[in-house]
Amino acid sequence: VFDVLTVVGFGLLGGSIAKAARAAGLVRRVVAVGRNAERLAPARADGTADHVTIDLAEGVSEADLVVLATPVETLLAQLPEVWRKAPARAVITDVGSTKAAIVRAAESLAAERPLAFVGSHPMAGSEKSGYAVSRVDLYRGATVIVTPTAKTEAGAAGKVTAFWQALGARVKTLPPEEHDEVVALISHLPHLVAFALVDAVGRVNARAVDFAAGGFRDTTRVAAADPQMWREIFLTNRPAMERVVAAFHGALNDLERLIEKGDAPALERVLGDIRARREAVR
Amino acid sequence: VFDVLTVVGFGLLGGSIAKAARAAGLVRRVVAVGRNAERLAPARADGTADHVTIDLAEGVSEADLVVLATPVETLLAQLPEVWRKAPARAVITDVGSTKAAIVRAAESLAAERPLAFVGSHPMAGSEKSGYAVSRVDLYRGATVIVTPTAKTEAGAAGKVTAFWQALGARVKTLPPEEHDEVVALISHLPHLVAFALVDAVGRVNARAVDFAAGGFRDTTRVAAADPQMWREIFLTNRPAMERVVAAFHGALNDLERLIEKGDAPALERVLGDIRARREAVR
Repeated sequence: VFDVLTVVGFGLLGGSIAKAARAAGLVRRVVAVGRNAERLAPARADGTADHVTIDLAEGVSEADLVVLATPVETLLAQLPEVWRKAPARAVITDVGSTKAAIVRAAESLAAERPLAFVGSHPMAGSEKSGYAVSRVDLYRGATVIVTPTAKTEAGAAGKVTAFWQALGARVKTLPPEEHDEVVALISHLPHLVAFALVDAVGRVNARAVDFAAGGFRDTTRVAAADPQMWREIFLTNRPAMERVVAAFHGALNDLERLIEKGDAPALERVLGDIRARREAVR
Repeated sequence: VFDVLTVVGFGLLGGSIAKAARAAGLVRRVVAVGRNAERLAPARADGTADHVTIDLAEGVSEADLVVLATPVETLLAQLPEVWRKAPARAVITDVGSTKAAIVRAAESLAAERPLAFVGSHPMAGSEKSGYAVSRVDLYRGATVIVTPTAKTEAGAAGKVTAFWQALGARVKTLPPEEHDEVVALISHLPHLVAFALVDAVGRVNARAVDFAAGGFRDTTRVAAADPQMWREIFLTNRPAMERVVAAFHGALNDLERLIEKGDAPALERVLGDIRARREAVR
């Protein structure tokens, strides 16, 4: 329960946080910060935000909870200003898809001025973006990974965890670096591979897409995601991406070698092992 | 309209053909050929087949239309016997997922005894298999690729096309080699990549699957497919697979290089181009 909630970046994720927090009675007042006054107008008009501003310093100046919901690169650029202007009592979190870069940047700022920060990654959202698609139940049943470290201010992780749980989310905890490896495996690598699959079709026989069935549609659905967002994710998660892409090459090369050799029994055994692991995914 | 339809391999695809052909009044009599009398019993009991047999020679001996619906390797092994025992009037097709190996094998047999053969690939089915999941509407709205060549007996392609259309399918035509390239791109490569993605998770951090969200589930759904079937598909479509896997490596390496270099504008441009191509897929 926070008096003033400031959400920086009022798109799908930020707008949904404000709607859900208000519906759950978790906040008395919502301040929405954005780049563009016109784009913020609907949030003010529909009562989701009590106050909208394009001035980050003003927006965070009375916040009890600050949620940073801008794209990762923007967020990294905004952190120093948030650190200068937020009240000493403020708890700060974010919704960035990569965590190590953000958490480590926040920790260097906290070495100068100790504010309570803990990183969050709500695993919700879709290919669509913008305040217009935000909704009160986006986080209901979603998993949110919270990433405290040894340097996290005592109490911050608990408050942020309770906030997400009150929005209906299931909270799990991981160190930021392991978080980045996990999301590289289950999200960033599948996205990169989906982009490469679509590109490969164009390189070999573009009219193949006219025959696309469910398998291709499922496997490449995520290649319709926002290029700017994914450029930022791939670049801010570079260390983990390099490790998991290397593992993927290893896995693919092993399968290719079995196909080249025509080693039917070994290929079938490996595919069976992999299928069993896929079926274990709930 | 055929007097006797013989379906060899009475699983999801074969059973659904018999049910649909019977429902559409396309056949007077259905003969089901399988490996195992017990597994054929339900098709006889429910009236889908008038006669069931584990004797391939007997099963095709009075056929006007033979549909070969066994796994690709089995089918290749059965072709010579079908060629010896089917009546001269018979039209023969198959439902194999790769076409060049089957069509070329049929053409060498036809050089000795000219029977009317044309390859088919109905793009229907699911991860599930077996007669129990077969259904009368499996082909309704599905795409079937028919693969005639310069050597295809005049009339065979037309008869087989009309048969699929009467089951509710949309028929497209491709040469067998282009068919194999197209399905390698839109089906076999996505499957191989999905298997490699699941394997990569196990190689780096197996507990990552506990965090799997929609993106991972979509992208790797097809890795739950039958290992024996996919071993056969990968091996019988080896020439096309080698080409498309090479193109995929090229596409992935180009993306990796942009990430390594941190070339944000070029990466965003390439991702945007790919997204536009993905969005063009209906």
